[in-house]
Amino acid sequence: MVTHFRVTCGLERFRVTTSKCKMNFSIYMPPQAEGDVKLPVIFFLSGLTCSEQNFITKSGFQRYAAEHGIIVVGPDTSPRGIKIQGDDDSWDFGVGAGFYLDATKEPWSTYYRMGSYVNKELYELILSAFPVVDPDRIGIMGHSMGGHGALVSTLRNPGLYKTVSAFAPICNPSKCPWGEKAFTGYLGDNKSEWASWDATELVKKYNGPPLTLLLDQGAGDTFYTAKQLLPENLVEACRSVGVPVILNLREDYDHSYYYISTFIGEHFDFHAKILKS
Amino acid sequence: MVTHFRVTCGLERFRVTTSKCKMNFSIYMPPQAEGDVKLPVIFFLSGLTCSEQNFITKSGFQRYAAEHGIIVVGPDTSPRGIKIQGDDDSWDFGVGAGFYLDATKEPWSTYYRMGSYVNKELYELILSAFPVVDPDRIGIMGHSMGGHGALVSTLRNPGLYKTVSAFAPICNPSKCPWGEKAFTGYLGDNKSEWASWDATELVKKYNGPPLTLLLDQGAGDTFYTAKQLLPENLVEACRSVGVPVILNLREDYDHSYYYISTFIGEHFDFHAKILKS
Repeated sequence: MVTHFRVTCGLERFRVTTSKCKMNFSIYMPPQAEGDVKLPVIFFLSGLTCSEQNFITKSGFQRYAAEHGIIVVGPDTSPRGIKIQGDDDSWDFGVGAGFYLDATKEPWSTYYRMGSYVNKELYELILSAFPVVDPDRIGIMGHSMGGHGALVSTLRNPGLYKTVSAFAPICNPSKCPWGEKAFTGYLGDNKSEWASWDATELVKKYNGPPLTLLLDQGAGDTFYTAKQLLPENLVEACRSVGVPVILNLREDYDHSYYYISTFIGEHFDFHAKILKS
Repeated sequence: MVTHFRVTCGLERFRVTTSKCKMNFSIYMPPQAEGDVKLPVIFFLSGLTCSEQNFITKSGFQRYAAEHGIIVVGPDTSPRGIKIQGDDDSWDFGVGAGFYLDATKEPWSTYYRMGSYVNKELYELILSAFPVVDPDRIGIMGHSMGGHGALVSTLRNPGLYKTVSAFAPICNPSKCPWGEKAFTGYLGDNKSEWASWDATELVKKYNGPPLTLLLDQGAGDTFYTAKQLLPENLVEACRSVGVPVILNLREDYDHSYYYISTFIGEHFDFHAKILKS
């Protein structure tokens, strides 16, 4: 039986220095936050075209965060309210498509620094602004481009996140059309720089604390069948270096939030088991 | 433990004669629909500004419909794609605000016949197009304007719906600003006609099959405190004539889909207990 809880989500807005603009993020406080005990936090990174709103309105995660007593933070997917030529020409590059990396190519390198924003500025802001957060119990999850973000954030910063899981993540961006477009635009043509933001390449060199990757993928997801996501490449890389990985392939499921809402409870169980042990 | 299920929602589009335009509705088929047994159906009527999309993306009802084996149909809230002068001047009248009644005042009376659309044309279409539906086990629920629609549809058509419940319904539209505006616009000034579309007035004359009304209301809902909803008037009317009514007043909850998503499972339990007995 699920007990009652508040399912409101606060919306916070901070001027940040990393991307030189105001950034929105959502934060969900479970009922347990009213006590004296510090709580775990999970960051959720959303996919292409999303803002900080999609996950909090469509996934139904609140029920599980409330059961487990976990705070949930949802960043936006790109800088907003600045204007760079071409930033809204396509839905898979620029606004709503920051790819959680630090661009090095002009003109994007000034503002598009979502990697540092999420893993440094927002991460530290959450710890300092919300004393209820336990700095030793922080996890991350994401969807699609945000699944890539969750994986890369964890692999590039060993120990920063104790747990990681992803729904339908882009797993090997150097080898798929979405990733090739984003990396060319944000990073230029230097393939060694691409590798430093590619989960499948990063995991081969991972030597941080023990980590299990939980990947979830709908077999009926047209982006999966179109080889934008390539989870098998990541699984193979994990196995080659002995990093534990779970790939749940879900028959018939697509890329949508209906799919996420069906399995979000399992992901919270996975994170809670480790973060609350 | 919740078992897995498909959370897709079919979107159907039919040209209907009642409102002389194409109308969308959503239909959710639970996994049990693949068997040979006929299943109950619940109609969900949405509130002001909504389409057939809000409930299926934000409420999380699918989990409970799947558990109970209940089909769920979600109509739109007004005719679409026709043009009447003034139909988009305000968010609480015209497009997205059909109030589930049959307008009698020109120019609205030609198209704005949502009462007949839902309770006759769509109702019959669901029975004929989806043979899996059990015609003897049909319920209805709704939110805000749609809660009013669910109550009025049930009370005006004794026996058509075996179960009814509502989230934050408009309960006495003749006595609140939203209702006065809509009734004046769609029905004119004849107060006896108003009474024929007002749940609080209708229940006083109800003499159909035994019926229990389940009302749900957030005490922190600003439309409740602004006296747009008036559930106490309906409860008093029910008690005056001996119609059983349950009013769950939920401390601090607002008017949003977060509130609905928190308690939608309880409403499915209520309907299932009767429809599946």
